[in-house]
Amino acid sequence: MRFAIASSLDYQAFGPSTLILNIEAMREGQAIHSEAFSINPDIAHEDHVAETGNRYRRLLLGPGSYRITYTAEVETMPSHESPGDVPEVPVSQLPLAVLPYLFASRYCPSDQLARFAIRQFGQLPQGHERVTAICNWIYEHVDYLRGSSDTGTTAAETFAQRAGVCRDFAHLAISFCRALGIPARFVSAYGWQLDPPDFHAVFEAWLGNRWYVFDATRLSPVDGLVRIGVGRDAADTAFSTFFGAITPGPLSVSITPAGPADETRPWTTDAVSLSG
Amino acid sequence: MRFAIASSLDYQAFGPSTLILNIEAMREGQAIHSEAFSINPDIAHEDHVAETGNRYRRLLLGPGSYRITYTAEVETMPSHESPGDVPEVPVSQLPLAVLPYLFASRYCPSDQLARFAIRQFGQLPQGHERVTAICNWIYEHVDYLRGSSDTGTTAAETFAQRAGVCRDFAHLAISFCRALGIPARFVSAYGWQLDPPDFHAVFEAWLGNRWYVFDATRLSPVDGLVRIGVGRDAADTAFSTFFGAITPGPLSVSITPAGPADETRPWTTDAVSLSG
Amino acid sequence: MRFAIASSLDYQAFGPSTLILNIEAMREGQAIHSEAFSINPDIAHEDHVAETGNRYRRLLLGPGSYRITYTAEVETMPSHESPGDVPEVPVSQLPLAVLPYLFASRYCPSDQLARFAIRQFGQLPQGHERVTAICNWIYEHVDYLRGSSDTGTTAAETFAQRAGVCRDFAHLAISFCRALGIPARFVSAYGWQLDPPDFHAVFEAWLGNRWYVFDATRLSPVDGLVRIGVGRDAADTAFSTFFGAITPGPLSVSITPAGPADETRPWTTDAVSLSG
Amino acid sequence: MRFAIASSLDYQAFGPSTLILNIEAMREGQAIHSEAFSINPDIAHEDHVAETGNRYRRLLLGPGSYRITYTAEVETMPSHESPGDVPEVPVSQLPLAVLPYLFASRYCPSDQLARFAIRQFGQLPQGHERVTAICNWIYEHVDYLRGSSDTGTTAAETFAQRAGVCRDFAHLAISFCRALGIPARFVSAYGWQLDPPDFHAVFEAWLGNRWYVFDATRLSPVDGLVRIGVGRDAADTAFSTFFGAITPGPLSVSITPAGPADETRPWTTDAVSLSG
Repeated sequence: MRFAIASSLDYQAFGPSTLILNIEAMREGQAIHSEAFSINPDIAHEDHVAETGNRYRRLLLGPGSYRITYTAEVETMPSHESPGDVPEVPVSQLPLAVLPYLFASRYCPSDQLARFAIRQFGQLPQGHERVTAICNWIYEHVDYLRGSSDTGTTAAETFAQRAGVCRDFAHLAISFCRALGIPARFVSAYGWQLDPPDFHAVFEAWLGNRWYVFDATRLSPVDGLVRIGVGRDAADTAFSTFFGAITPGPLSVSITPAGPADETRPWTTDAVSLSG
Repeated sequence: MRFAIASSLDYQAFGPSTLILNIEAMREGQAIHSEAFSINPDIAHEDHVAETGNRYRRLLLGPGSYRITYTAEVETMPSHESPGDVPEVPVSQLPLAVLPYLFASRYCPSDQLARFAIRQFGQLPQGHERVTAICNWIYEHVDYLRGSSDTGTTAAETFAQRAGVCRDFAHLAISFCRALGIPARFVSAYGWQLDPPDFHAVFEAWLGNRWYVFDATRLSPVDGLVRIGVGRDAADTAFSTFFGAITPGPLSVSITPAGPADETRPWTTDAVSLSG
Repeated sequence: MRFAIASSLDYQAFGPSTLILNIEAMREGQAIHSEAFSINPDIAHEDHVAETGNRYRRLLLGPGSYRITYTAEVETMPSHESPGDVPEVPVSQLPLAVLPYLFASRYCPSDQLARFAIRQFGQLPQGHERVTAICNWIYEHVDYLRGSSDTGTTAAETFAQRAGVCRDFAHLAISFCRALGIPARFVSAYGWQLDPPDFHAVFEAWLGNRWYVFDATRLSPVDGLVRIGVGRDAADTAFSTFFGAITPGPLSVSITPAGPADETRPWTTDAVSLSG
Repeated sequence: MRFAIASSLDYQAFGPSTLILNIEAMREGQAIHSEAFSINPDIAHEDHVAETGNRYRRLLLGPGSYRITYTAEVETMPSHESPGDVPEVPVSQLPLAVLPYLFASRYCPSDQLARFAIRQFGQLPQGHERVTAICNWIYEHVDYLRGSSDTGTTAAETFAQRAGVCRDFAHLAISFCRALGIPARFVSAYGWQLDPPDFHAVFEAWLGNRWYVFDATRLSPVDGLVRIGVGRDAADTAFSTFFGAITPGPLSVSITPAGPADETRPWTTDAVSLSG
């Protein structure tokens, strides 16, 4: 599918400050037909593509007000498969490069949640459907509630408190997957139909021989995502990181279909991979 | 029932130290037919009965080794009722003196577990049976596992990690009760049939017009307890608190029926109150 | 000193709800010359004085909007002493009734902070001045910052994060005192000169043979407080606790001198007790 | 310097289990003159060098007892510089590839400790000496105490509790560095003179244009380390990770100089890099 995406971020710097942004669409698994990154006033910036495919932009700000704007037209190429055809991979056969996505991370203390994960999901049939079962459990047992968590909230706290926002849902799902031996990673994205519009957070699990995408919040169709960044958890995939005396202002995010209208299409129950 | 209880505690003090013990049977709801508290070498000590009925013994130790021994013959007077006859009390009608047992405490952060408690137990029929349902849930979902927790473990951690020992089971049950508006308190006790013998931890919930006792671990019959202390949680009911350079040594605890043998009697499913 | 105090609280109830308020001036150590508690619309309520002296008011609300108003003229009777004349009391000589104020509580995990407390304050001269040294340390090392904490924040978190509000300052000071063997309790109060006006939180330490008051925030003079409630920590002394579908609205609080004007008087450095 | 290193690990598997080991010396910055990895009974295994240079060995165990042995002779090539010649790098000029080492991780919640780090170390002269000042602060304020922490302990807990072991010291130092804008990573190593011998944990900070090694525990000279693995924190650098029904047994580790004896040489105060 083809999407027009845009984001706009304002910052006020009170002294020399460094701003690192990760708001641009990944190139992996997506075709970027056009894009524009601009900053007003216009200052030098530098870009970098990390090994994960995340695209970072670093700006050195002097005192003043800045508006950063990014727009792009991106074609995603979701692959659809039948969930029953997508198996789990025994740890003994995982590519060693995905092993780090089995380890506990800042917001995903999978060690602390292992006993529950194994009791609740350990006996389910393995494969894509088991990860869907995890998403369903979270959707049914955790309230999506703005203001119920903050930037320090871990998946263990979300599990106890039973409320959170999209990043908390993703952290909890990732923790359960890792506890079961399924590599899982955090994905930041532009999410079609997300209401109100904002940067979205979902997750991917390594199944078969690739990453499959899941959204335990059910707020955006998984084939309606334009991916920005991947990482262990939100600590790796902040859209904005800054150092120095700098204050963020309002943020706006949008995503709309840029191809033939497809608004009424039912949400897929296929296994979807966006990773190419 | 009549029980012979005994405990023996060893301490090594390396300088002037203060030791506060709470190992003697409460008088409330229990008849103490005989008892003896001794310390070897024999030093002065002072006792105090708190407003809760907990009996404290304070000793000022100089450097040296000490053995404290307590023995008693105690008759408990459990009242038995049919669980269906024991209602909850609306908060609007609770005696105001029991309100503090609705508040969060050191190990029972009932605020953090409220959403789950209300989802899981909020729609169940109210009364003694709802508290039994809480105990059953804990028994079924949390592993009793020595070494899985420590003296800092809160009920929110036990809930996430799904493992603990008797004090953790009691803290979790207390947290759920409080979140539902049921006053609940921690009880330390000599527990008949507890294996291996140790001080036991259970809890009481305020129902009808008194405290009813429950044991989510199912390790000791609730009418086989000789109560020592009650409080908000384990922070209030330590059997031993010390200040200064002092090291605890081995501990031994025992409880045996002192009346007509009754070892084979089935465990009760009655609503049991020990509080007189 | 004589103060006119007032508070006004709004609530919206959406069903039968129970509201428990603790906003009225304590009688212990303070003379209440006049007071009025009212609720509009006028509904029945019931009051209760806890063993601590805290005055609770319980209201059973039906659906609707309510405004609660409390006004009083209260004379505090602070005793002033020279700090050097106020000693600590060895644990071996403490009244056993104050021992619970040595134990860890919901927001005051004194066990977790003991090592630091002993390193930092353990060698200081004992007495009132040591508690003042604790307050000074907190004032100098922790930022008073609205929004930096929430109702779940413990003293261990405040210690690590080095920011908080009045209740966090009190929790941290209480934790340090308890770790050093000094009984300490939380005090909610009307605080003269507090800006902006709100319910204030300070603490008391047991020294000599009474409770002495301290304010690590330095936001209100310790002899300018009208005390409302005391307890282990904020979990015991909420000004408002509610059960049911009820939403709090805006709150207003005021305290002004009602006797001869004394606004320019320097803040005292005396040891002050308000507990009578 | 030339070292003979050895480690031996025992495992008991009760069913098919996967074991992933990271016990072999890194090749980056070290010359491996000889090495041998063996498992008894001999079963197939597979190796993998991660992008960090960590060397992983994966074994698929059937039920039974296994002993893994690794021995090597490794020459480290520490570079020594004067600390005053090793500057910090402004975030605006850091290689973007090291940025992930500025982010919070499982055990290093640098966000929670930022306020303290900036207050305590923010005004110190920048460079290698500032990181040494961090190490000195930790050495002076945190007790090295076996049993005071566990595998869930974060740097914020270590900071509050003021006790830990080598991994906790490294996590705390890493957190402070990151909070100050200095990339820092965890290093597992064979540590000469470590007593009792065990796997050791230290850390590296990115200064000038390379990683410099530090040990806040002062238990092993920084030029006496043979590095095994690097990562964000201990979650990335476990020497052993297992999946399945498997129980670890005793572990032995050794490191001795293999070149000319140099036991009496004073510990260096130079800035030391081991990363080549």
